[in-house]
Amino acid sequence: MEQLKLHPDRLFSSDPSVIKIARQLYEKIKDLPIISPHGHTDPSWFNENKNFGNATELFIKPDHYVFRMLYSQGIDLTTLGIPEHGLEGDMERSRNADPKKAWQIFADNYHLFAGTPSGYWLDAVFSDVFNFTEKLCSVNAQDYYEKITAALATKAFKPQALMDRFNIELIATTEGALDTLAHHKAIAGTSMEKRVITSFRPDDVVDASREDFIENIKKLGELTSQNTATWQGYLSAIQTRRDYFKQEGRATATDHGHPSALTADLSLNECEALFEKCRTGQATEQEQELFRAQMLTELAGMSIKDGLVMQIHPGAHRNHNLPIFNQFGRDKGADIPSQTEYVNALKPLLSKYGNNPNLKIILFTLDETTYSRELAPLAGHYPSLKLGPAWWFHDSPAGMLRFRQQATETAGFYNTVGFNDDTRAFLSIPARHDVARRVDCRYLAELVTNHQINEETAHTLAYQLTYGLVKKAYKLD
Amino acid sequence: MEQLKLHPDRLFSSDPSVIKIARQLYEKIKDLPIISPHGHTDPSWFNENKNFGNATELFIKPDHYVFRMLYSQGIDLTTLGIPEHGLEGDMERSRNADPKKAWQIFADNYHLFAGTPSGYWLDAVFSDVFNFTEKLCSVNAQDYYEKITAALATKAFKPQALMDRFNIELIATTEGALDTLAHHKAIAGTSMEKRVITSFRPDDVVDASREDFIENIKKLGELTSQNTATWQGYLSAIQTRRDYFKQEGRATATDHGHPSALTADLSLNECEALFEKCRTGQATEQEQELFRAQMLTELAGMSIKDGLVMQIHPGAHRNHNLPIFNQFGRDKGADIPSQTEYVNALKPLLSKYGNNPNLKIILFTLDETTYSRELAPLAGHYPSLKLGPAWWFHDSPAGMLRFRQQATETAGFYNTVGFNDDTRAFLSIPARHDVARRVDCRYLAELVTNHQINEETAHTLAYQLTYGLVKKAYKLD
Amino acid sequence: MEQLKLHPDRLFSSDPSVIKIARQLYEKIKDLPIISPHGHTDPSWFNENKNFGNATELFIKPDHYVFRMLYSQGIDLTTLGIPEHGLEGDMERSRNADPKKAWQIFADNYHLFAGTPSGYWLDAVFSDVFNFTEKLCSVNAQDYYEKITAALATKAFKPQALMDRFNIELIATTEGALDTLAHHKAIAGTSMEKRVITSFRPDDVVDASREDFIENIKKLGELTSQNTATWQGYLSAIQTRRDYFKQEGRATATDHGHPSALTADLSLNECEALFEKCRTGQATEQEQELFRAQMLTELAGMSIKDGLVMQIHPGAHRNHNLPIFNQFGRDKGADIPSQTEYVNALKPLLSKYGNNPNLKIILFTLDETTYSRELAPLAGHYPSLKLGPAWWFHDSPAGMLRFRQQATETAGFYNTVGFNDDTRAFLSIPARHDVARRVDCRYLAELVTNHQINEETAHTLAYQLTYGLVKKAYKLD
Repeated sequence: MEQLKLHPDRLFSSDPSVIKIARQLYEKIKDLPIISPHGHTDPSWFNENKNFGNATELFIKPDHYVFRMLYSQGIDLTTLGIPEHGLEGDMERSRNADPKKAWQIFADNYHLFAGTPSGYWLDAVFSDVFNFTEKLCSVNAQDYYEKITAALATKAFKPQALMDRFNIELIATTEGALDTLAHHKAIAGTSMEKRVITSFRPDDVVDASREDFIENIKKLGELTSQNTATWQGYLSAIQTRRDYFKQEGRATATDHGHPSALTADLSLNECEALFEKCRTGQATEQEQELFRAQMLTELAGMSIKDGLVMQIHPGAHRNHNLPIFNQFGRDKGADIPSQTEYVNALKPLLSKYGNNPNLKIILFTLDETTYSRELAPLAGHYPSLKLGPAWWFHDSPAGMLRFRQQATETAGFYNTVGFNDDTRAFLSIPARHDVARRVDCRYLAELVTNHQINEETAHTLAYQLTYGLVKKAYKLD
Repeated sequence: MEQLKLHPDRLFSSDPSVIKIARQLYEKIKDLPIISPHGHTDPSWFNENKNFGNATELFIKPDHYVFRMLYSQGIDLTTLGIPEHGLEGDMERSRNADPKKAWQIFADNYHLFAGTPSGYWLDAVFSDVFNFTEKLCSVNAQDYYEKITAALATKAFKPQALMDRFNIELIATTEGALDTLAHHKAIAGTSMEKRVITSFRPDDVVDASREDFIENIKKLGELTSQNTATWQGYLSAIQTRRDYFKQEGRATATDHGHPSALTADLSLNECEALFEKCRTGQATEQEQELFRAQMLTELAGMSIKDGLVMQIHPGAHRNHNLPIFNQFGRDKGADIPSQTEYVNALKPLLSKYGNNPNLKIILFTLDETTYSRELAPLAGHYPSLKLGPAWWFHDSPAGMLRFRQQATETAGFYNTVGFNDDTRAFLSIPARHDVARRVDCRYLAELVTNHQINEETAHTLAYQLTYGLVKKAYKLD
Repeated sequence: MEQLKLHPDRLFSSDPSVIKIARQLYEKIKDLPIISPHGHTDPSWFNENKNFGNATELFIKPDHYVFRMLYSQGIDLTTLGIPEHGLEGDMERSRNADPKKAWQIFADNYHLFAGTPSGYWLDAVFSDVFNFTEKLCSVNAQDYYEKITAALATKAFKPQALMDRFNIELIATTEGALDTLAHHKAIAGTSMEKRVITSFRPDDVVDASREDFIENIKKLGELTSQNTATWQGYLSAIQTRRDYFKQEGRATATDHGHPSALTADLSLNECEALFEKCRTGQATEQEQELFRAQMLTELAGMSIKDGLVMQIHPGAHRNHNLPIFNQFGRDKGADIPSQTEYVNALKPLLSKYGNNPNLKIILFTLDETTYSRELAPLAGHYPSLKLGPAWWFHDSPAGMLRFRQQATETAGFYNTVGFNDDTRAFLSIPARHDVARRVDCRYLAELVTNHQINEETAHTLAYQLTYGLVKKAYKLD
């Protein structure tokens, strides 16, 4: 069986002179608290503080990074217990899946994760959080399963205990515009109050291509006592929800997951007519796109007023695999990045608000070609723009390095905002932040050994990339 | 004169710790047999086993990688003896080109190949196959010419002897749908039977933009005794040819060289109407594109039935230089890659067949931006998709490294299929495979020294990337 | 305070074996004269030979690389003294900006330039040209200001003295088609005659989307005594100006800064009609684009006749930030690269003239994705095409390295043309060329240590990339 032992110099490159500097930089920042300003953990965990379930529940079923890889090699998702809650799903089959068998399949195929970020995170969690010393494989699969499941039942593995153990200073969850924020409200007054906050993600009331859009607009009206059958009432209702998210969920940011980065700046009449079409289900796909575009500009205007930082996450082609969507629903590893244009797309919003000192936009991309061509030049000019870290598929050692290598020379370091883990996988959060810290230290060490910056500057930057910039960018200081 | 001596550690990087691991990995896989599952060698070589001609015939005239570089520096193709078989060509001129003069021009300009893969392959062939110890230059040009030409006349340089010397376990050629496979049939029962197979490339009867398409459809009908004036008859005829290629050419794969990756899923009525337009020469360019798109889906359906692995090679803008095309015809180094979109393009085919366990598609690209953005996420999800290696212009040390660096973290290693040499240049096959093996070992060694995988895993992967994955992906095991 | 000391091995990588070879290569080429074939220095400097003004005048106000970074962090451009010469500008405010206060703001924010090429160039100028030994910071800001301003007033800092000190053999400025070339004419007969030449940039009379286009066409007619109300007269007028630039400005090249690389090959009738629309202000945006496209082909035809080398610089979305444009005018750091297509765009021009031995085109890009996909394959085939160096945002250590890594394997070295500094910042020219020389030596050293080329070849190539290729490509030999 293979040993599982994380090397202290992992991800510091193979070059001894780089490793030496990277180690010094890392030593100083490795124990800084974790700020997780953008992710998808469940707020009930931190409020209710219940134990997690079994190993399969925790590591396989919620993690589409993991099961998409197994699926790509022909493994049926139902055997892994992935719930079939799509239109054509049959919940019985996945409900009956044996979690131990699912875990065995995962272990039998663990070699598929060699060289992938999921592989590093999983190894790190198994080693650091559960103290395994053998790598997961077919033989030790059930032993792993038992030990993990037993540990999860203990006090030390309750969510709040893990928050402390992981040294998480703050974590932001993400909730839809209609969410009641019940858990965030309940947390107020507890030790978690300042450590668990929400973010406002209004895609459900902004994206008219969703099946539930019309229903959502109605609910939005009820929730806010606004007449969301009118453009002005609709905007007021959204502003009301933003205020609620700030007040009750301590939100400092919003998030917008659009297919493209398109923005628009239409006249009031055009807005009213477009909203009417969307609200009554008569908008074409193009009009739905234009409505999302207009709404990004409207939301930027609201950000200027209420100070919420705006995150824009464009470029995913969602639910590419229709049969899988119909059987299993959303988030099944079939979201595929596509070409994303920013220069023309953002121009209407930026022409209107891009020079406003109260606007803070954090831009993300799934299209790495835009780092040097579009995003770094835009962020290196507009005072309202900052660049989010390497995202999703690119949240990986080589992906992060490409981000720094391609964005830094034009945007500099101070137009970036530190790391986002963007994860549902709570136990992997320390491992994910650790990868980011290591890769940043390696990048800085290369600049030092190449005599492009000196060691003093590198130490300052390591601190900024780990802790300083994220607190400032997300207004957490 | 410069010495010609291949360094044993070439392409292993400059870093001693990487070199050390790469050398260990390479040592174990360097002598594995060559599997060449996709290429353009001439099957008559292996059937007739005749000697090759002179040095110019072998190294310059058939190799558009070589003569395009000379042409880019203003050297007239006719002086190199490149045949003018285009519409406006004058065969006399190139027929009269002196092969020794052509060789001298090549040698005089050999410095142009510094840093190019052609340069490495040529040096490797000159050193390893012909035992030269001085680098080709103006002074030794004629000596090179004489020695190569003399060697080519010997028994040891007959194709079958070279198959053994090169340790080629299997080579697949590529034939059009109308090919009689005379040489592959003749090989049956000989020692070459299991070592030389064909691939089915139906572009000539699928691409309605070709001048000979209508004629080809007629020939297809005659060859198969099917009525190719009807959509159903046409499909049956293609299926008949696929069966023939399996039976008589031992084909395990098909190949499709389309301008784009577009696929379609039209109704039967639409297919019939579209085919009728194409068959009668009345289709617009857009309709021809749609027809190719529909045919990829039809061919995928056939693959599910007959088990042939489907290779899709999109993205080349063929014959970009019209005057050169008119004078010299196809394949004169003027095929230029262009932007290629996969996510939307493949959706119709994948929605219909992408989850079918019997479908195996190997995707290639000339657009490196799609590695991390589109191809790795697609192959990391769909069970039917695997990624072909770095192709054509990217079949180079830095190109291969970029492929691994950009695809691995999302697709993993097991969604890739080993190396393709894709070449007409038979003598360069060992050198090409050796470059791929060296670069893969270097990439794996970097992961080891960076503590991302351990040495045991690296050895397993080196074997898989060299031998295991290609046999499985092309159903050669 | 931080020490300012340029390390002798800077930019040679961190790997001792690469550093060793890079150092040997660099040693041989570091003192070669500077050829600056494309830039934006002011010809009056070299003619009038007056002293430069103060530190702020020299380093901040004319350098949009510098002030865009400050602006991106919320610093008001007027406080830096950037003149408001846009439509809505108020010249009073910036005229009143205190240069010492502007310098202090710059110094207070000097950390923003860590890891950027501006940071390296500035440090290099401060160290090498002004002999500072402490890095610029808040504390020493005024000391820096005084020392620089005092030095600028001395004889040793007059432009001609700096030309000698910097070992600039030749510098080409860039002038619009209507320029009188007064300074270039005045230089004739002096020691600067062979060292300062112009380039012909006719965008002002070719780009019909400019506000001043119609006026410019009239002026063009007056200047040349041609009837520029007709297509033929217009073409003759341009040819007349080209002859003038050759004669009076010793131009060897033209330059074309178009939004895209589009070319066209229209009939005479179509040209006449299109020109008429443009000339009378009735062309649509699309027609203006088509006119620029046609003109690139016309200008290529003129290049074949008069031998001027054609530079094409496409892909910048100019003046993206409209409020900044309205207040401050052009060139304020808000030009953003956008996706650029070459394969289809250049086809009309290349089909007509691409095989003509008298045509020399140097292609640039702001879209790095085209290096390996489009530009290297095009330049590796067409005898008329060469690749310009990494440009603008990509004129940086990592940017240059990517250019070599992505273009060399397909285009080779001899289809590239050495370095362009493209700068207004005269004092930074030696630093910019030094960065290019260092990065090229590093790239070559990596090929040597990786055994892809030998040291002899690397020395030859280092010389070619620094001095040989630029003189040949720009016809300066």
